[in-house]
Amino acid sequence: MMAENENNGKTAFYPLNPERMMADLKALSLFNSTPGEGVTRLPFTKEAREACEYLKKRFSDAGLLVHEDAMGNIIGVLPGLDRSLPAIAMGSHYDTVYNGGMFDGQAGIVSALEIVRCLREQGISLRRDLIIIAFNDEEGVRFHRSYLGSYGILGRDQSKAILEYKDRDGISIREAMENWGMDSERIGEAAWDFDSIRSFIELHIEQGPVLDKEDIDVGIVHSVVGFRRYMVTVKGREDHSGTTPMDLRSDAVDTAARVICWMTDFARMRNDGTVATAGYLKVRPSVENIVPGLCEFSAEVRSQDMESLDLFTKGLRESLDKAAALCGTEYEIIEKMDIPPVKLSDRICGMLRQSCEERGLSYKLMPSGAGHDAQEIAAVCETVMIFCKSRDGRSHCREEWTDPGDIAKAAAAAYDLVMKLSDQE
Amino acid sequence: MMAENENNGKTAFYPLNPERMMADLKALSLFNSTPGEGVTRLPFTKEAREACEYLKKRFSDAGLLVHEDAMGNIIGVLPGLDRSLPAIAMGSHYDTVYNGGMFDGQAGIVSALEIVRCLREQGISLRRDLIIIAFNDEEGVRFHRSYLGSYGILGRDQSKAILEYKDRDGISIREAMENWGMDSERIGEAAWDFDSIRSFIELHIEQGPVLDKEDIDVGIVHSVVGFRRYMVTVKGREDHSGTTPMDLRSDAVDTAARVICWMTDFARMRNDGTVATAGYLKVRPSVENIVPGLCEFSAEVRSQDMESLDLFTKGLRESLDKAAALCGTEYEIIEKMDIPPVKLSDRICGMLRQSCEERGLSYKLMPSGAGHDAQEIAAVCETVMIFCKSRDGRSHCREEWTDPGDIAKAAAAAYDLVMKLSDQE
Repeated sequence: MMAENENNGKTAFYPLNPERMMADLKALSLFNSTPGEGVTRLPFTKEAREACEYLKKRFSDAGLLVHEDAMGNIIGVLPGLDRSLPAIAMGSHYDTVYNGGMFDGQAGIVSALEIVRCLREQGISLRRDLIIIAFNDEEGVRFHRSYLGSYGILGRDQSKAILEYKDRDGISIREAMENWGMDSERIGEAAWDFDSIRSFIELHIEQGPVLDKEDIDVGIVHSVVGFRRYMVTVKGREDHSGTTPMDLRSDAVDTAARVICWMTDFARMRNDGTVATAGYLKVRPSVENIVPGLCEFSAEVRSQDMESLDLFTKGLRESLDKAAALCGTEYEIIEKMDIPPVKLSDRICGMLRQSCEERGLSYKLMPSGAGHDAQEIAAVCETVMIFCKSRDGRSHCREEWTDPGDIAKAAAAAYDLVMKLSDQE
Repeated sequence: MMAENENNGKTAFYPLNPERMMADLKALSLFNSTPGEGVTRLPFTKEAREACEYLKKRFSDAGLLVHEDAMGNIIGVLPGLDRSLPAIAMGSHYDTVYNGGMFDGQAGIVSALEIVRCLREQGISLRRDLIIIAFNDEEGVRFHRSYLGSYGILGRDQSKAILEYKDRDGISIREAMENWGMDSERIGEAAWDFDSIRSFIELHIEQGPVLDKEDIDVGIVHSVVGFRRYMVTVKGREDHSGTTPMDLRSDAVDTAARVICWMTDFARMRNDGTVATAGYLKVRPSVENIVPGLCEFSAEVRSQDMESLDLFTKGLRESLDKAAALCGTEYEIIEKMDIPPVKLSDRICGMLRQSCEERGLSYKLMPSGAGHDAQEIAAVCETVMIFCKSRDGRSHCREEWTDPGDIAKAAAAAYDLVMKLSDQE
């Protein structure tokens, strides 16, 4: 598995140990409610508890001061030489989606832990504290609310209403926390004073195909794309497909098809990384010889460029108006999401480029197409993300895979970055 | 209800009696397994038996010689002055779809019966026999096999395999016939010698919006469109909608949308009555943030023009090739149906025009977009269809409606036609 890395010699990820990181990832993958069908580790469950206890033990073994905060985040601190200086923080999340993989989130925790182990083994003392974090509930699949753990650290979403969000069994966040032995009244205590944090680093698998396809070691993430999602309902009229002339029918699928072509043409023509997707699509009655009376579809755009998002929104409505007029249909459109793009730290991106060049790692400056804890933390603290390859871009499924050496290369860039950031004034 | 017809005076449908026809339609509509939810009268059921017995009684009351044939068709004969001459036949079907209307098929039977009644009341004796037919199982919804009754008369589909077609409860045609008191071994006896039939006339509701929209009394049907139906399966790849760039994704819905636009653009551009429909469409996994991995859709074209059908078939494959190349997807296409257009009798169409002009009825020469018993009979005997309005083009649903006066106008054109055809050498 390591054959390709031998060409680069030790410099690619020395002194990080890919096998040791892989052992941690495999151990975590056993805390899983769906063995054999991918990894499922939802927040506030038995598997999440087991993962937390495992991480606390490993953090402690690595010499960290460990605690679990009021939001279920696991935090380890490696004290620096001058503890009055703002700290460096690094981490990712320990929860998974349903039937997900063993790398999403977890690779970022294990990398931070490996960096701590290597610093100690190399006898390196940082000037600043290094805080490593395993965030709770980033995915939001259980309670339909993402970033619960990082929002806790950010002191956001403290309203009691959030605690009443329920899972599919009707269990609220409050009940789930209490069943887990936590006090939901105390979640405010999880909030950090970000004046004491200098920088935040999140290493993550790309969850897309770019690095794998282009065979690039490290993705230096300069931004997280914004996105907008709409739900469109086109209303036509059910008619016999043989007896209704083209100019007297109201075909909901014909309308939707025209708008979907516009969406993907728009994304291709922008040629700035913008993507557009009609992921959800439902037709009624969906019978071969009946003109479709109803077509619902999702219209999603993601882009690092606010202008592209705005042009999509404007163009989508124009395209709907035009298609509805041609097809004799009507439509409704509802905005479901509107999240602006987030710029990450240029300064740290520059330092990462330097680290990659020093190690001979290939790298690419790129946006993140998916949301992460880092995008939320970027609002209060200089932040960067580091991507490693995802094989075939597969994620959120059991096929999710990254070679240990590829995680180690990205972690090595982070290792160098941590030292540089800690040494700086 | 008759107000608008008063302007035309008696000439529009004299001597036909719209109320008497409507009374028959209403009586038939009570033989229904789904009262309150449209009319459901499937072949070889209790409701079908009740309808047959009602029709036999009404045919007999009108002075016809009545029998039920070996295929469950109800046949009434009005003997002509010279019984050695080839006969005129007229009729339509007595079965319905699930939750259908009270006019589809039934209007053609009741019109033929009313014509007989009027001929007798007017003291008119035809030179030739007039045979009126209530066909069994035209719709084919129970056993997924259309034209069972007319195929019986045509002597087609006599193979034992047909009798093993099953309904959704697993009951075969053979079993259904036997439960109905019929002998499935004797279906060959239903076949006619078409040398003894001069002409066949089927009056039917249009089941489309053209006559209603253009406010035309009578549709003179010169052809039944051919149609081809394909099932297309586009295979893409499920990927994260945010992290997968446009040029690295395989979007099955994007592919399908391009092909569907091509289909409907083609039909519009031909401008010859060709229609194209993607009525059935299913997407998997159909999740907002996942690039669709699979899209299945039906691609149907109907046209009276064989060249249009051929160009559709060729263009559909070209469009699929082009869209699949753009979107990085693969596809499969299966032909499900290929029925050529059927030309009806120019000679009788000309006679019908004359009848309409004599009565001051507005008329339109038009193709039938739906299939009918007449299209099968046209292969062996000069045949025409006569359409009356369908309100808003609605059919195969409880909203199906034609005003009694509108049926009577079309039936009056048929009345005149029967007399002309009977008188001719």
